[in-house]
Amino acid sequence: MRLSKAFWQTFKETPADAVIPSHQLMMRAGLIHKSGAGLYNYLPFGLKTIKKVENIVREELDRAGCHELLMTVVTPGELWRESGRWDKMTEMLKFKDKGGRDVCISPTNEEAISDIFRKTVKSYKQLPINLYQINTKFRDEIRPRFGLMRGREFIMKDAYTFHIDSACLDEGYENLKSAYSRIFKRLGLNFFIVEADAGAMADSSAKTHEFQVIADNGEDLLIYNQEANYASNQEKAKTKRANIDFDTSKPAQEEVATPNMSTIEDVCSFLKVPQHTSIKSLVYYASYHEEDKDGEFLLLQLLGDDELNELKLTNYLGAAEVRPAADDELKDLGLVKGFIGAFNLKNDLKVLVDTAIDMDGAFTVGAQKEDFHIKNFVPSRDIKECEQVDLRLAKKGDLTEDGKHVVDEIRGIEVGHIFQLGDMYTKAMGITVLDQNGKTISPLMGCYGIGITRTVAAVIEQLHDEKGIIWPKNIAPADIYFASIAKSDELKALAEDIYKELQDSGFDVVFDDRKAGPGFKFKDSDLLGLPIRVVLGEKTYGENQELEIVVRKTGESFKIKKDELVSKIKELMETL
Amino acid sequence: MRLSKAFWQTFKETPADAVIPSHQLMMRAGLIHKSGAGLYNYLPFGLKTIKKVENIVREELDRAGCHELLMTVVTPGELWRESGRWDKMTEMLKFKDKGGRDVCISPTNEEAISDIFRKTVKSYKQLPINLYQINTKFRDEIRPRFGLMRGREFIMKDAYTFHIDSACLDEGYENLKSAYSRIFKRLGLNFFIVEADAGAMADSSAKTHEFQVIADNGEDLLIYNQEANYASNQEKAKTKRANIDFDTSKPAQEEVATPNMSTIEDVCSFLKVPQHTSIKSLVYYASYHEEDKDGEFLLLQLLGDDELNELKLTNYLGAAEVRPAADDELKDLGLVKGFIGAFNLKNDLKVLVDTAIDMDGAFTVGAQKEDFHIKNFVPSRDIKECEQVDLRLAKKGDLTEDGKHVVDEIRGIEVGHIFQLGDMYTKAMGITVLDQNGKTISPLMGCYGIGITRTVAAVIEQLHDEKGIIWPKNIAPADIYFASIAKSDELKALAEDIYKELQDSGFDVVFDDRKAGPGFKFKDSDLLGLPIRVVLGEKTYGENQELEIVVRKTGESFKIKKDELVSKIKELMETL
Repeated sequence: MRLSKAFWQTFKETPADAVIPSHQLMMRAGLIHKSGAGLYNYLPFGLKTIKKVENIVREELDRAGCHELLMTVVTPGELWRESGRWDKMTEMLKFKDKGGRDVCISPTNEEAISDIFRKTVKSYKQLPINLYQINTKFRDEIRPRFGLMRGREFIMKDAYTFHIDSACLDEGYENLKSAYSRIFKRLGLNFFIVEADAGAMADSSAKTHEFQVIADNGEDLLIYNQEANYASNQEKAKTKRANIDFDTSKPAQEEVATPNMSTIEDVCSFLKVPQHTSIKSLVYYASYHEEDKDGEFLLLQLLGDDELNELKLTNYLGAAEVRPAADDELKDLGLVKGFIGAFNLKNDLKVLVDTAIDMDGAFTVGAQKEDFHIKNFVPSRDIKECEQVDLRLAKKGDLTEDGKHVVDEIRGIEVGHIFQLGDMYTKAMGITVLDQNGKTISPLMGCYGIGITRTVAAVIEQLHDEKGIIWPKNIAPADIYFASIAKSDELKALAEDIYKELQDSGFDVVFDDRKAGPGFKFKDSDLLGLPIRVVLGEKTYGENQELEIVVRKTGESFKIKKDELVSKIKELMETL
Repeated sequence: MRLSKAFWQTFKETPADAVIPSHQLMMRAGLIHKSGAGLYNYLPFGLKTIKKVENIVREELDRAGCHELLMTVVTPGELWRESGRWDKMTEMLKFKDKGGRDVCISPTNEEAISDIFRKTVKSYKQLPINLYQINTKFRDEIRPRFGLMRGREFIMKDAYTFHIDSACLDEGYENLKSAYSRIFKRLGLNFFIVEADAGAMADSSAKTHEFQVIADNGEDLLIYNQEANYASNQEKAKTKRANIDFDTSKPAQEEVATPNMSTIEDVCSFLKVPQHTSIKSLVYYASYHEEDKDGEFLLLQLLGDDELNELKLTNYLGAAEVRPAADDELKDLGLVKGFIGAFNLKNDLKVLVDTAIDMDGAFTVGAQKEDFHIKNFVPSRDIKECEQVDLRLAKKGDLTEDGKHVVDEIRGIEVGHIFQLGDMYTKAMGITVLDQNGKTISPLMGCYGIGITRTVAAVIEQLHDEKGIIWPKNIAPADIYFASIAKSDELKALAEDIYKELQDSGFDVVFDDRKAGPGFKFKDSDLLGLPIRVVLGEKTYGENQELEIVVRKTGESFKIKKDELVSKIKELMETL
C-alpha cells in the first residue's frame, strides 16, 4: 500500500476521553474513529489487524472441528422469554420494532444457537457438535470507556458446544481450551489461563476458565505461581497465608483508650503491633434466593491485614447477594462503627471467623464502645459461638494450597472465557435429544467467548512503548514500513524497485512515498508499529549504497546492501 | 467436509411463509434458519456462499483502488440530524439507549462516512478517495417477506467516493461501474445494467444505474434491446410507440350509448375498434414541495392501451407527489367516472396530452355523462387548451428513441445500485476541502451498494430447477458432492482414498459418508446444488471399476475410471 493513495492519518493530540494506552494509541495511529459514546468505526489499518485476529481464531476453531455460522444481530424477544432471560439481562438493548414485536441487539446467543440446534439435531449420534460465529455485539453500558476495551459495540467470537453427557462435555471443553491456547500463542501474547468463577450461570462444579492477557492496566488481579503452574482470578484463588507467629499464651484482656482511632492502621501503629495481630470486624447482610429464607446479618472476623472475598462468603452461605451493613443498621445492631468486637453481642448475630485466624492467638479488637479497643482478645476463649470459614481474599505472599510455593500478583485483561453451562438452557427451552437407550434427555452445553476487538486493545496494552504500538508479526496491519526519503529521480526510481521487490517476496508493505521529511515519517512509523522499518535515505545510500532496517520491537538497526535486504528481513522476522 | 460430522439438515417441507423459489430452497437446503420475522441466521453452507460473494466483491473493489473499513451498526442520532435525515428515514430502527441518547441501526452510511472523511481529508491532493464496508444492516419493514430477498437484517456492501469536481466524480463512477460489472460476471450471473431514477436523492442530472439480475420472479420490469445495447428500468425508460395509423380526416363527433361500459376494453370491444383509437382519461392530484404553491388537479390523456408513468408526470410537474383523484373529488370536479372526456370541463382543469396521441387523430372518449361515449373526438379540434407531454409507461413492442429497434420486457432483481450524490451531504454537514486555488469547496460524493445476501437469493432465483439450487461454481458452498454408496469395507476404504485425492487436488468436497441410501443422498445433492456430483456405487464400481460424475447444471453424466476422475472434473469445471 502506497501511503500517498491511502486513507490514513495520524494525530499528535490524544483525545481527552482516552485514558489508557490502547485507546490513546489506536486513536492517534488512525486505527479507529469515534462515532459516538462507546461506538468506534474501524479504519483500514485497524480493520486489517481485526481481520487477522479473526482469521487466526477461525483457523484454530475449524481445526478443532467447529462449524462457523452467523446469527442475526437483532433477535426476537420471544426466544429470550423461553429461557427466562428477557427480564434478567440488564445491559441488553431492548426495543419494539415497527410491527410492535419485542426485539433486542444480542449481547450473547445461547438462546439463538439452541433454537438452531433443536431444528437440526435429534439424536445422540449427531453429538457432540461445535458451532461458532464471529459477529457484532452490543452491550448498552451507560458510561462506556477505554475505547475498544469496553466499547458498547464490539466484535466477538462466540462458540457453543452440545454434548450427550458430562464426560463428552469435559472432552469438548478441553478441546476448545487447547484451541484457545493455540489462538493466543499465535497472536503473540503473554497470557494466563486462570480458574474463574461460575457465578450465576451454572452450578459451582461447572468448569470455567478465563484467558487473561498480562498488562499493567488490566482490570483483573491474578494470583499465580509459575513453578506450581498455578494461576487464578483473585476472587477464585485458593491459597493460604504464609506462616505467622501468634502469641498463644492466652494473656488477660486489657482495655486501651484509642481516641478517634477507628482504623486498623491507626490502632496498630498507635499500639506498635503488627496489623496481623489485630482482628478486622466486618458486618454484612446476606439475602437468599429462597422465598421462605429471611435475610440475615453476619459479623465477620478477618486478620487485620486481610480483605474479605465477598464471593467466598456468598458461596459459603449460598446467598443471592451479600453487602456491607449500612451505618444505621450497625446502630440497630448495637454496634459502634470502628470499634466492633465479637463479644457482648446484643442480637443473635452469627459470627464467622476466617481460617487464617489462630483461635488461640491473642488479638487486638474493638471494645464495643467509642474510642476504646481491647488487647489480648482470644477467640477460642472470648467468642461465645462461631464458625471458622475461609473468607479472605488471596494476595501476594500467600502460599499455594500445598504450602510449597509463594504466590505473586499480576494484572490481566480478560480476553477469553470458557464455560460449562450444563443443561441450564436446554432444560429451560425444553430441548431434548434421544440418547443411546431411546430416552429423551436435555443435552449439555458449553459456551466459549473471545472478544475480538477487546483482544486487539489488549495486545496494545501489553505491547507498546512511549513512541507507539509494537505489533506482533502475525496480526500487524502490515509487515514492513518502507520509508523513502529519496529526493533524486534516480533514488525515487530505486524506491519503486525496492517496493516491488519487497512485495514480490511476499511481504505486505506500507510504502511511505508521501512528500514529508524523515522525522515525520519515522514518527508515523513508530506510532503505527509495524514489525520492520526499512529506510532509503539519500545520505546512507549515497555513501555506501546501503539501506537501513529497524526492528520496532527491539530498536536494533542494521545497515544493509540492497541485495541482502530481503534475506535479512526474512531472518529478522523469524526471530520475532 | 464429512457429512457425518457436519451440522447440516435438509427439509422435505416448504415453510408456509416461503412463496418464492430462493426462500423455499434456502430453507429446504438448510442454508438459513428463521429466527424471527425477516430475521435469518446463516447456517454453515449458506455462510460459505455468502463469504465467497463477499470475497469477490472485496477483491474487485480493492482492485479498483477502494479501501475497506467498518462502521458501527449502531450510529448516533446526532449525525443524522446534521444531514437533516433523522426525521425523514422511515424504515430506520430508531431508539434511545440507556444513556438517553438517540441512536439507530443504520440502513445506510452517508453521514457516518462523511464524518470519518472530514477527520482525515483536508485537501484536494488527497482526492479522489474510495471507501467501502461489508456490514450488517437493518431495515425495519413491518411485513418482511421473501426470505433473504427482503429480509429486515441483511448484509450489504456500501461504498462511498469523494471527489473534487464532477469530472473526477464521473471518472470514479465509471471505475466503480466497471468493478460492479466484473463482480456480477464473476458471480456467474446473467444481469443488466439499467438506467435508474435519481428520485429524491439528488438532482435529475446525476447519473445512477441499477444492476439487475434477470429472474422470472423479479420485482422490477426492465425494458431493453440488446442490439441497441439499451436497458432501463421501466419507469425510467425512454422509448417511443411503434408507428400506429390514425384517422386524421377529422370526421364529425358522434355520441354512442355505452350502457355500463366504463372500461376501455368494454367500450372498444363493443365498438369493434382497436384500443389505441380510444383515449384513456385519468384525473390526478399533484402536490408540491414549495409552501406557496397549491396542489392541483390534472386531466391526463393517454392512448387507450397505454399506462401512465407516474414518475414522468412527477418529474414534468416538479411535484412532491402525485396520486389518482378519489371518487368524491371526481364528483366535485363535475366528472363522471368511466365516462370522462377532455371537454366541457367545469373547472380550470389543466389537460396534459401524451405525446403518443396524434392531435389530429380521431378517438373514442367519454361523453362526460353516464353510459355514453363520443366517437371521432379530435384533440386539436376538440380540446380547448392543453400541453403535450411524454407521460406513458414504456412497454414491450415500443421502439428505441432512434426508432431503429423494438424493445422487449424482462423481469429483474435489483442487486446493485450506483449513484452520484453530488454535494448533498457534504453541504448539509458543512464538510469542505481546499481546492487547487486554496478555496474551500464541498467535495462531491458517489455511493454504491450491493446487497450481498439479496444477491445470494437472486442467484437462486435465476439458477434453480424443480430439484433444487444450481450454484455457479465461484460461489457454490463447495465444488463437489461426493456420495459414497459403498457398503463393503474395501469400497469404504476406497471412498476415503477418493475423498482425500479430490481434496488434495484442490477441490472443496462435501463427502456424504452418512448411513443412507442413494435416493436420499441424490435428493440432498440436487437440493444443495454443488456443481459436480461424484458417486461411488457398489454396482457401477463392481462391474467396471467406474465412478459416476453428474454435472448439476446440465444433468450430463459420465462413467469414469478412478485414474481419470480428477482430470475429468477439472475439464468439466472449466466449462461451467
